[in-house]
Amino acid sequence: MTRPANTVSGMESTDSVAAREKTDPRLHARRRVVVEHVQPEIDGGRFPIKRSPGESVRVTADVFADGHDLLAGVLKFRHVPPGPQDPAYESHGADPAYESRRAGPVDPPQWTEIPLVDIGDDSWTATFPVTELGEYEYTIEAWVDRFGSWLKELIAKFTAQQDVTSELLEGAEILQQAAGRLKPAPTSLPDDGLRLLEIADKLRGPLPQAARVAAARDPELRALISARPDRSTATTYERTLRVVVDPVRARFGAWYEMFPRSCTNDPRRPGTLRDAEACLPRIADMGFNVLYLPPIHPIGHTHRKGRNNALKPSDTDPGSPWAIGAGEGGHRAIDPGLGTLEDFDRFVALAGRLGLDVALDIAFQASPDHPWVREHPDWFRHRPDGSIKYAENPPKKYQDIYPVDFETSEWQSLWAALLDVFLFWISHGVTIFRVDNPHTKSFRFWEWAIAEIKRDHPEAIFLSEAFTRPKVMRYLAKAGFTQSYTYFTWRNSAHDLREYMTELTTTELREYMRPNFFANTPDILHEYLQTGGRPAFEVRFILAATLSASYGIYSGFELYENVPVRPGSEEYLNSEKFEIRPRDWNQAGRFNELIARVNEIRRQQPALQFNDALRFHDSGNAAFLWFSKGLTVFVVANTDPYWMQHGWVRMPIEELGISSRQSYVVEDLLDGACYTWRGAWNYVRLDPSDRVAHILVVRP
Amino acid sequence: MTRPANTVSGMESTDSVAAREKTDPRLHARRRVVVEHVQPEIDGGRFPIKRSPGESVRVTADVFADGHDLLAGVLKFRHVPPGPQDPAYESHGADPAYESRRAGPVDPPQWTEIPLVDIGDDSWTATFPVTELGEYEYTIEAWVDRFGSWLKELIAKFTAQQDVTSELLEGAEILQQAAGRLKPAPTSLPDDGLRLLEIADKLRGPLPQAARVAAARDPELRALISARPDRSTATTYERTLRVVVDPVRARFGAWYEMFPRSCTNDPRRPGTLRDAEACLPRIADMGFNVLYLPPIHPIGHTHRKGRNNALKPSDTDPGSPWAIGAGEGGHRAIDPGLGTLEDFDRFVALAGRLGLDVALDIAFQASPDHPWVREHPDWFRHRPDGSIKYAENPPKKYQDIYPVDFETSEWQSLWAALLDVFLFWISHGVTIFRVDNPHTKSFRFWEWAIAEIKRDHPEAIFLSEAFTRPKVMRYLAKAGFTQSYTYFTWRNSAHDLREYMTELTTTELREYMRPNFFANTPDILHEYLQTGGRPAFEVRFILAATLSASYGIYSGFELYENVPVRPGSEEYLNSEKFEIRPRDWNQAGRFNELIARVNEIRRQQPALQFNDALRFHDSGNAAFLWFSKGLTVFVVANTDPYWMQHGWVRMPIEELGISSRQSYVVEDLLDGACYTWRGAWNYVRLDPSDRVAHILVVRP
Repeated sequence: MTRPANTVSGMESTDSVAAREKTDPRLHARRRVVVEHVQPEIDGGRFPIKRSPGESVRVTADVFADGHDLLAGVLKFRHVPPGPQDPAYESHGADPAYESRRAGPVDPPQWTEIPLVDIGDDSWTATFPVTELGEYEYTIEAWVDRFGSWLKELIAKFTAQQDVTSELLEGAEILQQAAGRLKPAPTSLPDDGLRLLEIADKLRGPLPQAARVAAARDPELRALISARPDRSTATTYERTLRVVVDPVRARFGAWYEMFPRSCTNDPRRPGTLRDAEACLPRIADMGFNVLYLPPIHPIGHTHRKGRNNALKPSDTDPGSPWAIGAGEGGHRAIDPGLGTLEDFDRFVALAGRLGLDVALDIAFQASPDHPWVREHPDWFRHRPDGSIKYAENPPKKYQDIYPVDFETSEWQSLWAALLDVFLFWISHGVTIFRVDNPHTKSFRFWEWAIAEIKRDHPEAIFLSEAFTRPKVMRYLAKAGFTQSYTYFTWRNSAHDLREYMTELTTTELREYMRPNFFANTPDILHEYLQTGGRPAFEVRFILAATLSASYGIYSGFELYENVPVRPGSEEYLNSEKFEIRPRDWNQAGRFNELIARVNEIRRQQPALQFNDALRFHDSGNAAFLWFSKGLTVFVVANTDPYWMQHGWVRMPIEELGISSRQSYVVEDLLDGACYTWRGAWNYVRLDPSDRVAHILVVRP
Repeated sequence: MTRPANTVSGMESTDSVAAREKTDPRLHARRRVVVEHVQPEIDGGRFPIKRSPGESVRVTADVFADGHDLLAGVLKFRHVPPGPQDPAYESHGADPAYESRRAGPVDPPQWTEIPLVDIGDDSWTATFPVTELGEYEYTIEAWVDRFGSWLKELIAKFTAQQDVTSELLEGAEILQQAAGRLKPAPTSLPDDGLRLLEIADKLRGPLPQAARVAAARDPELRALISARPDRSTATTYERTLRVVVDPVRARFGAWYEMFPRSCTNDPRRPGTLRDAEACLPRIADMGFNVLYLPPIHPIGHTHRKGRNNALKPSDTDPGSPWAIGAGEGGHRAIDPGLGTLEDFDRFVALAGRLGLDVALDIAFQASPDHPWVREHPDWFRHRPDGSIKYAENPPKKYQDIYPVDFETSEWQSLWAALLDVFLFWISHGVTIFRVDNPHTKSFRFWEWAIAEIKRDHPEAIFLSEAFTRPKVMRYLAKAGFTQSYTYFTWRNSAHDLREYMTELTTTELREYMRPNFFANTPDILHEYLQTGGRPAFEVRFILAATLSASYGIYSGFELYENVPVRPGSEEYLNSEKFEIRPRDWNQAGRFNELIARVNEIRRQQPALQFNDALRFHDSGNAAFLWFSKGLTVFVVANTDPYWMQHGWVRMPIEELGISSRQSYVVEDLLDGACYTWRGAWNYVRLDPSDRVAHILVVRP
């Protein structure tokens, strides 16, 4: 990134102007410019927006003043070094994360400034790039452009053949004041102040008025003075807004979820992390970026669940990985059946060499055998008889799980221990966390913990697994979660998908909630997949991978696994949550190739790595979802897995510079097939027995 | 107004809880409830909303917590006594008016609380009435409903035939804690604390579980405990929001603008205020509420404008009332041609007896002869040669007007003097001010001045005459103006009117910008009126008076005066701004009667006194504007002044409880004519030669 132009130098800093204003009320009263409705701004600046390096922030604001003077202004931004640590026992502000940042360093870095551009209707805009992880701040400052206002009037009067002697003298005064705001330049450089004084003299006389007006209009003068405006009564927007810059993987990535204990040929012998190493090449070959493992910790024995969630397990049932903790340890330990911490470190390193980031599942709950239960009984809720309360959704009981109590009087030690779980795994090379059911835990804890972790580890990514009400999901994203699971699995019609994507990509949500479109999870096998067969799996995969820059599948998807535990349920039969599931990966064949191809297309086509250039286009068949990203990659998908669908789709040729009579070639990136199209409306036929979608680019 | 129910008594006040929280960080960390998106809220609480007595404020908020607990909460509101005076020289905060209110009294009044109601999608609502002028504050507080959550689980488990011994003991503990939060009652009253302890004992045993569960479900217990919730970890919304309550006249009024000097039979002899007294009965008979006078101050002589804005006046030309100030005085003086201050007081009193509030025009500018020019030359801008700058819009010059300079170094004395102009006229019985071109004066001044005036005079009304860009007009309304002139004169088609009214009444604007629909002004004679003849005048009058609760006309409208100074201009020929215009009021005839009738309808139909129950209905003719207020008054107007228009309009009979086969009578309130309608769609014929609109009510 090049440094933005027009960085002010040799000028009193705006911060010192701001400081001076605080002690000089007269400057405030004479501030005539209003700066309001700065966008993006989430909840009055309460929460930051999100970006990743290489992206930019387009800021708009309403800027106006009384009267008819011209205005000028700047967008100001700066990267903010992390604030001091905020121990849980100090996080008592209304907004812990926010307050700790506010306190900030004593000497904040200098602002970089970018001139605002007037885009009409009293709206102004400028854009700044983000290049570093961590936090940026931005705000808007604007002022009356006294030189510009004067010049405009001068020209209007001179053009109307009025005498402008007095106006030229006024201009000379403006120039002289500007010169006074300049420090003397080093002798080796041209001295702009002296130059301004020269021009001021010229305006005063004795040349003819026409020559003096010409001197006033000289672009050199405009440039000299624009860099030294009178900002003594400038207005700065009342809030400083924030951007959290996460790594690119927060925005763009293909996730694969796998139970390492299923990496075995024998359901009675759990796979180890060493066994699971053998699975890595297959996953990497499919082009995935993130390998997400369900909890890898020791599994409790008390009230362990058996196959298909049975209350009575057999002696060999391995239990649910989410029943965390046993004699061997809790959230910082590895299930001995999987191996050792050294095995894990080796697994992470091997995955990394194949381009796979290992993501861990963080589920803050304990089996009755978790060491915390013994060591910190106060972190849990108790019955009047002193026993610890297991999880319930009355009348249902989950006796294998103890929820932690975020309202405990011992919350400070609890919060610190939970934070430590993240930091422990970060020290073992993990920076991506899929957080289990965050909506059943304290929101304040998340806001504090994520801010604390990102202070030292801005590379950390937190995926919120909150399948709950919209406002709760949004709040978790605002409070700090980097990515969010979504309603994608339940949006299967073209209409529903269009509506949902429009909400995610065109409303304020786009600024802070990054969707991660999982096509299935160990808990969600949608009826569409249960009944739609191979075409359903393929179209859902292509939609997830092209609609959303981040998406994922849970293993077995590529084998078209589609049998529910019972009709009407979204749970899998013989769910891998409760048993070991060896699989014959050789069946995968064609789907593996499709997955690999789509992931390759995602790497080659930058438009698919963002969500914000999504556009839906007109189609004559309601079963078609017809959209583009960045007007470069076009996708038409048949959302009907049962029947051939055909019809017309409209290519936005006007925006592509293609005339209505011109023919052009569209190439399907999936198989290289080329089609000659002409005009806007073209015919598409998608037969599920053959193909479910085209991913097209226009070839000239 | 009755006092809202459920006012908390005998409880620790929420304010003292808030104070305690500040010193006890643990309460903050354990606050699980989120309260966000409180509406109405203007710009993050920067500006107040507006109401008038008898109105209410419906507040909504998003309220939710982690997990599945039930929640409860209250809307809190209170009338705020005025804060201390804020002299101009202290108004240095970012938001002068706001800051002065924040500083507020040391002991704010107690909050009144109204329970929130859950309306789904994590939204909650409650409504509070405003009854007193001045300022109210409101905010939202919510908490986990521990008793309710416990009871819900108890019932679910008991219904599933589970043992609930432990749960009943937990409930007893909740009751005991609630009892502990109560002060002992006076001996003469039932002691709720003792009653809670009794029930707690009952829950513990020895009755059968069914009886103890029944005791827990007793509505008496719910009532006892709902009034004493555990609010120790309640969340209060981070901002306290404000309502400015203006007098009813701010919301509802019919204005009449008149130049008193035209109350004469002889254009060479200006009418005096004593002459103008004779005009009052005619205006009152038409049903107007506000009589608005252009500036009544001495008029300058230097560069005085002649008839039709001529640069050279004749000796007898009276000059423009907006060229304020002469040897006889400035903004606090009366033009000697009009009379004396005593005459003015008498005029105001006589008008008041006829139900007319006199409104004054406040135009902060000076003629070259204004005493301020001599006494305070620093309040004006100067040329390099020391002369004072007149108003300009280059190349146009307005040499008869000196604008005041809000950026002067003497701004403190200037602001104080301007404020004093308002206070002076308030001391002479005027509380309504039409402010001339506020958008060319400092916004900060207006915010400060209006807040200062309303601190002691909450009855004051300020009408903003800003015909400028939308965001500037809105800002003036937010910054304090009570009412606003609008684009109404330029919205003449049914489509444009519908769109404009939708913007004014269904967006955030409805909360702070009250439109005043003037059908004409001395500066605006729209082409529609110039060419449309009598029907144009009548339909514009009816539309102004029925679409907007506040509206006005400038005199001459009722005489169908429609001749522009030249084709294409919106200025009147022989504009009253520059000359005296005696009129023969006997011509008015039919229009006077129409005006009187419409104003009578406005008084009789409360729905016409508000803007927020406006609804547009379907019509088959694009020239018809077909709308209702409060579903009680229905108006259909023909916006085509040239041609008969006929077609069908749809009555929303479903909402009126009328079946599609039922016939019903609609009565035109204008002339009492009745029509029998049947079903939703009915035929209307409006011939401009006969009538331009119906104002209908449905008779059973």
